[in-house]
Amino acid sequence: MDATVIKIGGSLALYQEKLKILCSKLRVASKKHNILVIPGGGEFADVVRVLDKRFTLSDSVSHKMAILGMDQYGFLLSDLIKGSQVINQLKHIQNIFDSHKLPIFLPSNFILRNNPLENSWNVTSDSIAVYIANQLHIRKVILATDVDGIFTRDPKKYSDTKLICELSARKLESMNERTSVDKFLPKLLSKMQIKCFVVNGLFPERVEDILDKRNAICTIID
Amino acid sequence: MDATVIKIGGSLALYQEKLKILCSKLRVASKKHNILVIPGGGEFADVVRVLDKRFTLSDSVSHKMAILGMDQYGFLLSDLIKGSQVINQLKHIQNIFDSHKLPIFLPSNFILRNNPLENSWNVTSDSIAVYIANQLHIRKVILATDVDGIFTRDPKKYSDTKLICELSARKLESMNERTSVDKFLPKLLSKMQIKCFVVNGLFPERVEDILDKRNAICTIID
Repeated sequence: MDATVIKIGGSLALYQEKLKILCSKLRVASKKHNILVIPGGGEFADVVRVLDKRFTLSDSVSHKMAILGMDQYGFLLSDLIKGSQVINQLKHIQNIFDSHKLPIFLPSNFILRNNPLENSWNVTSDSIAVYIANQLHIRKVILATDVDGIFTRDPKKYSDTKLICELSARKLESMNERTSVDKFLPKLLSKMQIKCFVVNGLFPERVEDILDKRNAICTIID
Repeated sequence: MDATVIKIGGSLALYQEKLKILCSKLRVASKKHNILVIPGGGEFADVVRVLDKRFTLSDSVSHKMAILGMDQYGFLLSDLIKGSQVINQLKHIQNIFDSHKLPIFLPSNFILRNNPLENSWNVTSDSIAVYIANQLHIRKVILATDVDGIFTRDPKKYSDTKLICELSARKLESMNERTSVDKFLPKLLSKMQIKCFVVNGLFPERVEDILDKRNAICTIID
């Protein structure tokens, strides 16, 4: 399918006005490009983490609860993106593109029914976005987060760190550092023909540049 | 249907050990009584409230997000109640009773599809529990919360307050005080043949007493 999956990271919800700008830019971009939005988990997943720790829940149950958190954020995004439509079945996506709406995929129905991925906190919305893209034969995934991409060391902790412009899934898998993407992602990407862009959604012009195939500050996992 | 709906309030998740005791007592009680558990919202709904305030979401969207929070808590409860089974369709409940399992109803599938109730924060899991009970012709609903019942004044704010043992839905509707149940509940109850018990779930023996038709410290709305 000729389209781009954009995962809107949950962390962006902490930047209310900037998230609104990103959403309105996506609406404009969706007139030129087929864009499928997949929501992150953010604060909705964080509360699941808290309860998981408090009750030592089973992996399967906390996984399901976190994915419901993605649905919650998807509904929130549907309020911010004019002309969007939430969907929970992959087969409806082409119809929504055809009707010039911007689809937001709520993953719980699909993921809870099919359970295709490891049930652990290593699998978050990053892996789910890539998994869904692959199901739809979409070859371009943008992971919009609140940092500029993948760094040599965690930029929220260290100052002596550098943005990596491009790296392979295999190289990403071998990194010991915690990065801005989930741990399962490189495993998935190494099996798939997908080009993945990790980009700072606080700068919507970078997302537009990637959609329009211009150079942008980001990390490309290829 | 000869059964009792028990809504397990989300606030009880703050009392980890006590919630576990309540859950194990419910499992025992379910061998004598048909019990249908409906989850509250608690911390999962609270994060929706925070995001609703931050983004001034539409009533419809925040309602859906909060109901997904009930599903999340339902999954959590399924980990705490041995022999339980989550379901999202009302028609399966009798089968689950027949197989001696304890059903936990995840409301999002039903409520998001049918949208039978006002979309506002006046409608919480209290009203949803009563609505679902009525759909199933269940005439007894227990709302297990973290206070002893409905008081003349909010017991978390005032010391000069008294537990009300029994009151009508109409009387409840006329109360100006914020109570431990949602604002929409009396409107619903006034139209239904349901006896509703508001009880402190931190004392599971009170819940057992109500199930066994013994007197208990609680508020009966009749």
